[in-house]
Amino acid sequence: MKDNYHFVAISGSLRKKSFNTMVLKALQNFAAANISIEQLSIDDIPLYNFDLHEKVFPESIEKICTAIKTADAVIIVTPEYNYSIPGVLKNVIDFLSKHPTKPFDRKAVGIISASPSLLGGVRAQFHLRQILVAVNAITMNIPEVVITEVNTKFDEEGTLNDEKTKEFLKKYIAELADFATNLNHNFLI
Amino acid sequence: MKDNYHFVAISGSLRKKSFNTMVLKALQNFAAANISIEQLSIDDIPLYNFDLHEKVFPESIEKICTAIKTADAVIIVTPEYNYSIPGVLKNVIDFLSKHPTKPFDRKAVGIISASPSLLGGVRAQFHLRQILVAVNAITMNIPEVVITEVNTKFDEEGTLNDEKTKEFLKKYIAELADFATNLNHNFLI
Amino acid sequence: MKDNYHFVAISGSLRKKSFNTMVLKALQNFAAANISIEQLSIDDIPLYNFDLHEKVFPESIEKICTAIKTADAVIIVTPEYNYSIPGVLKNVIDFLSKHPTKPFDRKAVGIISASPSLLGGVRAQFHLRQILVAVNAITMNIPEVVITEVNTKFDEEGTLNDEKTKEFLKKYIAELADFATNLNHNFLI
Amino acid sequence: MKDNYHFVAISGSLRKKSFNTMVLKALQNFAAANISIEQLSIDDIPLYNFDLHEKVFPESIEKICTAIKTADAVIIVTPEYNYSIPGVLKNVIDFLSKHPTKPFDRKAVGIISASPSLLGGVRAQFHLRQILVAVNAITMNIPEVVITEVNTKFDEEGTLNDEKTKEFLKKYIAELADFATNLNHNFLI
Repeated sequence: MKDNYHFVAISGSLRKKSFNTMVLKALQNFAAANISIEQLSIDDIPLYNFDLHEKVFPESIEKICTAIKTADAVIIVTPEYNYSIPGVLKNVIDFLSKHPTKPFDRKAVGIISASPSLLGGVRAQFHLRQILVAVNAITMNIPEVVITEVNTKFDEEGTLNDEKTKEFLKKYIAELADFATNLNHNFLI
Repeated sequence: MKDNYHFVAISGSLRKKSFNTMVLKALQNFAAANISIEQLSIDDIPLYNFDLHEKVFPESIEKICTAIKTADAVIIVTPEYNYSIPGVLKNVIDFLSKHPTKPFDRKAVGIISASPSLLGGVRAQFHLRQILVAVNAITMNIPEVVITEVNTKFDEEGTLNDEKTKEFLKKYIAELADFATNLNHNFLI
Repeated sequence: MKDNYHFVAISGSLRKKSFNTMVLKALQNFAAANISIEQLSIDDIPLYNFDLHEKVFPESIEKICTAIKTADAVIIVTPEYNYSIPGVLKNVIDFLSKHPTKPFDRKAVGIISASPSLLGGVRAQFHLRQILVAVNAITMNIPEVVITEVNTKFDEEGTLNDEKTKEFLKKYIAELADFATNLNHNFLI
Repeated sequence: MKDNYHFVAISGSLRKKSFNTMVLKALQNFAAANISIEQLSIDDIPLYNFDLHEKVFPESIEKICTAIKTADAVIIVTPEYNYSIPGVLKNVIDFLSKHPTKPFDRKAVGIISASPSLLGGVRAQFHLRQILVAVNAITMNIPEVVITEVNTKFDEEGTLNDEKTKEFLKKYIAELADFATNLNHNFLI
């Protein structure tokens, strides 16, 4: 184990009161003291167009690339739109996949989905795992985090008030740190 | 069979010299005289954000909705980005899925993928079919069009010069007209 | 609408006390008087082997083929094993796909999954839909039936005692009859 | 790197002249001298039935479990049946997933598909990757092996005579050894 970990996290929704962004904030709050989790904003990323972005990437993408490259692991928290991940999130991954530094290559990635529905966005996770194979990310399989009926688990201020979810997220971050340590020990160094 | 058909078609790539847009143009050129195929531009559609688009949709989306609602069938021609459809295309579908007129509902849809790779983007089709279930589109199963090594099948001017592909696309449009007729006869009227 | 409907149904589990078979029985009990639902047994189907079954099919498969061909629609009720459908069920579909009569071709199919888990086997549905594209079945998209925590919804005798699920299944059968009527009107006659 | 590696391999087809089994034999022939590849037979595995197999597993399954547990990595070579893996292969994985020793848990797995079709069975790989997430296998992402038009690459005796494929398979085995070493160093010891 390392002394300190730095994770970066992306929320798949642009909405201000996004439940997925609330989950991301909860991860930041409940992580152990030696694990920092930095949210990477995807608000100002344009739609990918080969004609414009073959060689020149937006500054926002450059920042995300650098942040991922130096992070111990990436967490993606995503809603489900139409049985898949949002186009907005896919667009970011498309950009990153074109970047010459290949930020996701052999990077430890944790996937979380949250949705007000009974199924918690699990179908989005299915697609996201496939997509991450293409960029050679190493996604953690277990434990899986599928937060069902997420709207019942946060209060008006966006504070997580479901003890079971809280404990689960704590455990999840610890597991991801473990997973990342194991992976990075050989793959990245 | 109807006397005349009007299809609308979307290319999943914004690139000017997109092979998928070339395939779309080829469909327009090789369709029978009684089938018109109108390309719907997705160039100026913003990234979906619930805060901005809960009730007000961009004019470009309104246009696409109306065009799909009145069309006999929709054709989606898509490249594969990271084993799925481009974020750009998913973003359009996310928008359309939120529109109160539900443009894809019980609409006949044909899927085509094209790629310079040996696998022709078939993985993108896999995801697209799943996504279209969520909007209750009725996608034609057979024949499937997966155009492999598409870069070898068009000349510098973007003209399709592969006879086999030409014949296949002609047949495909006729089959889709047939499929749409059968579906629409009962489902939409 | 037709006066009477005949559906056939397959449970994806061989287990005697299978919850999915209980759901199938519940469908039989709650269908309207003019809709009969016949369970097709898959208990005695061998593992598919091209060397043995290239031309000669087991009697059990012949029976299922005939039953599907003459049915108005097929219902598949499946558990989820390892994020997909059981090998046992996939093996049956593999057999049927090789049969020269192509029993699933343009056949209306309804998909139901049930599981004691919180996610109700929805991942199995994802795979099943993909698989059914290959045999050109026309699967109904909506409404979807994902029965979560199914163990809490049946009593010791295998009787469905959850009113909401009961109402939903009734409605589902009616919708499938509607869907089948529309499809079969043109596609099959 | 280790001095010697022992891999086990499963062919997803029961057919005697299976192209996938030919690919497996080619892997055995072209592996470096310090890598042995043992084929695990799945010929005599019954259909999974919870009533029969809740606690007692067939001898053939016990053997496969033990072999996988002690192997450095597993290779699965699979055809595509109906856009997924064969029921026969899924049935084996279902059995293994129920075994208390959890043979796939954190095991390095390589996936290969081969098919006479132009698409080489890539859709089967898509499903197989999802399925292996459920058993917590760590599947190698890259390089991917999709052998298209496999019937043109072997002679009548089942000997691989395509130089490009030969080189690729050699490289693949070496990469898998590398991948397994890295994984096993921390995860399994």
